[in-house]
Amino acid sequence: MSVIEARTSDIAELGQQLRVDAVRASARAGSGHPTSSMSAADLMAGLLSGHLHYDFDHPHLPGNDRLVFSKGHASPLLYAMLHAAGAIDEEHLLTYRRLGSDLEGHPTPRLPWVDVATGSLGQGLPIGVGMALGARLSGSPARVWVLCGDGEIAEGSMWEAFAAAADFGLGNLCAIVDVNRLGQTGPTRYGWDTGAYATQIGGFGWHTVEIDGHDPAQIDRAFAEAEHEGSRPTVILARTRKGKGVAAAEDKEGLHGKPLDESEKAVVELGGVREARVHVNGPRSSEPRQSRPSTSVRRPSFPVGSMAATRDGFGAALEALGEANPDVVVLDGEVADSTRTAAFKKAFPNRFFECYIAEQQMIGAAVGLQTQGWIPYASTFAAFLTRAHDFLRMAAIGGADLRVVGSHAGVSIGADGPSQMGLEDLAMFRTLWRSVVLYPCDANQCAHLTATMADLPGISYLRTTRAETPVIYRGDELFPVGGSRTLVASAHDKVVIVAAGITVSESLSAAERLADEGLPVRVIDAYSVKPLDAAAIRQAAADTGRVLTVEDHWPVGGLGDAVLDAVAGHIPDVRFHKLAVRGMPGSAGPAEQLAAAGIDAAAICRAAQRLMA
Amino acid sequence: MSVIEARTSDIAELGQQLRVDAVRASARAGSGHPTSSMSAADLMAGLLSGHLHYDFDHPHLPGNDRLVFSKGHASPLLYAMLHAAGAIDEEHLLTYRRLGSDLEGHPTPRLPWVDVATGSLGQGLPIGVGMALGARLSGSPARVWVLCGDGEIAEGSMWEAFAAAADFGLGNLCAIVDVNRLGQTGPTRYGWDTGAYATQIGGFGWHTVEIDGHDPAQIDRAFAEAEHEGSRPTVILARTRKGKGVAAAEDKEGLHGKPLDESEKAVVELGGVREARVHVNGPRSSEPRQSRPSTSVRRPSFPVGSMAATRDGFGAALEALGEANPDVVVLDGEVADSTRTAAFKKAFPNRFFECYIAEQQMIGAAVGLQTQGWIPYASTFAAFLTRAHDFLRMAAIGGADLRVVGSHAGVSIGADGPSQMGLEDLAMFRTLWRSVVLYPCDANQCAHLTATMADLPGISYLRTTRAETPVIYRGDELFPVGGSRTLVASAHDKVVIVAAGITVSESLSAAERLADEGLPVRVIDAYSVKPLDAAAIRQAAADTGRVLTVEDHWPVGGLGDAVLDAVAGHIPDVRFHKLAVRGMPGSAGPAEQLAAAGIDAAAICRAAQRLMA
Repeated sequence: MSVIEARTSDIAELGQQLRVDAVRASARAGSGHPTSSMSAADLMAGLLSGHLHYDFDHPHLPGNDRLVFSKGHASPLLYAMLHAAGAIDEEHLLTYRRLGSDLEGHPTPRLPWVDVATGSLGQGLPIGVGMALGARLSGSPARVWVLCGDGEIAEGSMWEAFAAAADFGLGNLCAIVDVNRLGQTGPTRYGWDTGAYATQIGGFGWHTVEIDGHDPAQIDRAFAEAEHEGSRPTVILARTRKGKGVAAAEDKEGLHGKPLDESEKAVVELGGVREARVHVNGPRSSEPRQSRPSTSVRRPSFPVGSMAATRDGFGAALEALGEANPDVVVLDGEVADSTRTAAFKKAFPNRFFECYIAEQQMIGAAVGLQTQGWIPYASTFAAFLTRAHDFLRMAAIGGADLRVVGSHAGVSIGADGPSQMGLEDLAMFRTLWRSVVLYPCDANQCAHLTATMADLPGISYLRTTRAETPVIYRGDELFPVGGSRTLVASAHDKVVIVAAGITVSESLSAAERLADEGLPVRVIDAYSVKPLDAAAIRQAAADTGRVLTVEDHWPVGGLGDAVLDAVAGHIPDVRFHKLAVRGMPGSAGPAEQLAAAGIDAAAICRAAQRLMA
Repeated sequence: MSVIEARTSDIAELGQQLRVDAVRASARAGSGHPTSSMSAADLMAGLLSGHLHYDFDHPHLPGNDRLVFSKGHASPLLYAMLHAAGAIDEEHLLTYRRLGSDLEGHPTPRLPWVDVATGSLGQGLPIGVGMALGARLSGSPARVWVLCGDGEIAEGSMWEAFAAAADFGLGNLCAIVDVNRLGQTGPTRYGWDTGAYATQIGGFGWHTVEIDGHDPAQIDRAFAEAEHEGSRPTVILARTRKGKGVAAAEDKEGLHGKPLDESEKAVVELGGVREARVHVNGPRSSEPRQSRPSTSVRRPSFPVGSMAATRDGFGAALEALGEANPDVVVLDGEVADSTRTAAFKKAFPNRFFECYIAEQQMIGAAVGLQTQGWIPYASTFAAFLTRAHDFLRMAAIGGADLRVVGSHAGVSIGADGPSQMGLEDLAMFRTLWRSVVLYPCDANQCAHLTATMADLPGISYLRTTRAETPVIYRGDELFPVGGSRTLVASAHDKVVIVAAGITVSESLSAAERLADEGLPVRVIDAYSVKPLDAAAIRQAAADTGRVLTVEDHWPVGGLGDAVLDAVAGHIPDVRFHKLAVRGMPGSAGPAEQLAAAGIDAAAICRAAQRLMA
């Protein structure tokens, strides 16, 4: 037997083993996706046994290749690969989908060999772009392999990734598309026409390889081709058959996401249970991740009493942070001049990634970069972050450490109108599991919070304002996450006003007027919207008996609801009123907008007086 | 002068007039996007004066072409066109961006000639796909023209639209890309390389035309080519210069979104103010919209006491609705078997649109269809609707009437794990302006609400459940929006449990157990999460003094917060506790998931007892 014959026989044999294990795991679970695993089994056998470079004992080595299952529902195949590599044993394999098992229905980083959560289609490739960027930035020779389904090619986020990867020249990235022609409900748009995909993806500048995804020699050659690419990403378009290897399931509609009938017979048809242990190539480099020492952040300072936009505080702090911490990277959605990431871009061009107007790719790349120890800040208009809601949701599931900054929040942006106003961002980010939501009112506070975010785990969100606001804090003050600042207080306060961001200065003006009118009120700057300083707010509620919240956001899911949640059930007899944006704004100047929305100083005064009635 | 010479001279002259008016409007406003308007002015002059068919006095005629400004920031150009067509006068034009004006920073349907809100890039073309589908379905010869920016081609949603339009064979759709090579912060990815765009978009099956976007003859010919296409959509890729016509602004970076310096000089350079009134071709057909009579809905009925999934109630009601109302159309994200829209698909294939796994295109198409009187229902897994958050946000701004249905909500889906669980959908949809959020607990209730949605204005959302739940309502009961059902009540209730969807049956079980333990509780089915039946819940809170909410959703933004918002400030002394999903779920069976999340009957009993302590 020649070397090539031996190699192809190995791939075919390992492919059958992976199928058998996928079938068994799904059968035991009583659910799962064996048929979608079986179509890609030969592809993954070829990758695992000849082209993936990976040390399963040290999954976080920078020299390790990365493998992302963008088609996360094919998790039985991934787990079968882990079994074949000796990373998990058979008993573990058969816990698939059981309560408490880390072999979940869709892969998550609860497994040390899984870097990101997948299962919402179209996300693995944009994340892979970030991994490939991160590897290149680290000087690592590692390659990134992404297994995609053909159905998910319909997701726009895939095309954001095809464009970005070619533009970034990511020769270290390879997408493997399992063209099994069947989606969940029926045939995909292009069926087995790999030529259609090749024309489209090739049109974006990718190297395309069309193969029979069950032919070991073609598979082996395709991966080798990908490994020899220098600056073009490669897509392997593999014609495959869903349920391959079991006649009753092969290329049959209606079997998506179901264990095989008569799974024991299927295992026999596949040649029975095997226990072969595959030899996987070691990492492409054995160097550990280089420690890049960081220094303390030279914090920018804005004079108290001056006017400055919080977005300027963010921009200045981000540049200082970039200087102090060489792991910080920044991603932009083609609005760096507005968000103020432009200063960082100028100072550290190699750590700045222009994602153009493609917010899903921006967040996906950030998720990919953080898997390799980079500290990403991703920024665009708060309104357009809604575009990446699903990526953020999945990032939270995967426990990614992301810093997201949304500028141009609220009606106070003025004349551009509602399409540009972030009015649901607080709700969206508060909903995310274990998120932190920060909303500074002045540039110094914003600068401090920007630097603080670098050390926060999970997803943290910073909301900035377009307009200038009065600088009320000194440049050296500290603002811990979960804290608040009581800006106005007396022993006789009758109402507590809880504000954040642009409404803080309006509340301070209102407090002055109300004091003049004989109504002493407390003012709390709740810059940490999540976690909220519940203790301080409850105390203020107990002291005054009346809580008034005011926010530049829709009335649902923002600061007011956060305060209600903190106060409810704890303080027996409190009157409460929430000021928020209730009507659809049009175009107008910033002050006109705040007045029209009923969240300016005058509206706060009226509401406080009403609470006294 | 030959006819062609006269025509090209007309286009050039009108182009200058449009530029002048865009410059003047932005100058008066002190903000806006004149430079992005000037690049596309000749294109729009050519369209308006020779190829658009439109009756400005009767904008809703089905025979009218549709024009969408996907690059909504070029609104000064649109308003200049309206001025040239005589739809608005000069005084009106110069109210651009002022408080109260309907000439907003980005176009909205407050103007009768604007069908949808734009301003978040990448949305106009997916919406145009829906309009083109709607025109074809109506038998209208009208064409759909979408003016796109080159920067927005980076948005994945554009590629969802390129794929869908070709697949649907929409020869009545034309995208005009204003390739002015400059984005907001600098050059776009491909600059003036219209060939790159042609390769990419042509690869999806579009007819591509590359032209000089300032050459009237080329412009005229390109539109004529588009009008002669039968089944292929056309993209006109026009090389243009941002700020064209004013030397100080032309092709200059750093002038995005700013009025021109020395605008009066610029107007002179453009040849001064003109007052030409353009002749616009009339509609392609003068037929009014055909009234398609609807009959009463044959409502499906599930036997009380049986088990049935709410998604089955939805599917059956949707089919019955399709039979009764010929205006109902359905859009799917390649999960029709799971969401249960498959029955409608089978019964009414011509009113069913398979959008594949492209949720932005699905919602965009629904927005486009409703502009023409169709009644769209768009459905996929609740979790994946987050993908379309920005489209939904913009649809709310545009006042679109949409019905959205999210299946597989909550942890109760079981073993598939968190990537497939909609746990933030209530928050997302509650946040949307003037939305309605419905969450039925049994199949009969769901069927009634499904039919009710057909008549609701704005965005309504229906949340369905994968698992079967007990049928507790008769098939002929009515469930008004804003209502609730009190399922268990006595004069001595000590706690009110507010539930919806899957937690209703858990609450009923808990109420039985608690009654056995000597603790009488009230149970309210709050199927209308927004608007909530605040009166009933406040009364119950006042009667019992203790409110317990329970929901299969993250603790932020869902039912519990809705109840808090309704009760807070109205009832002085109420204890409150919210049960919701607080930990990250893994894989497990449905009952195990409800128990692990602490939202099953046992957890409800424990929480009720704690509220008594």
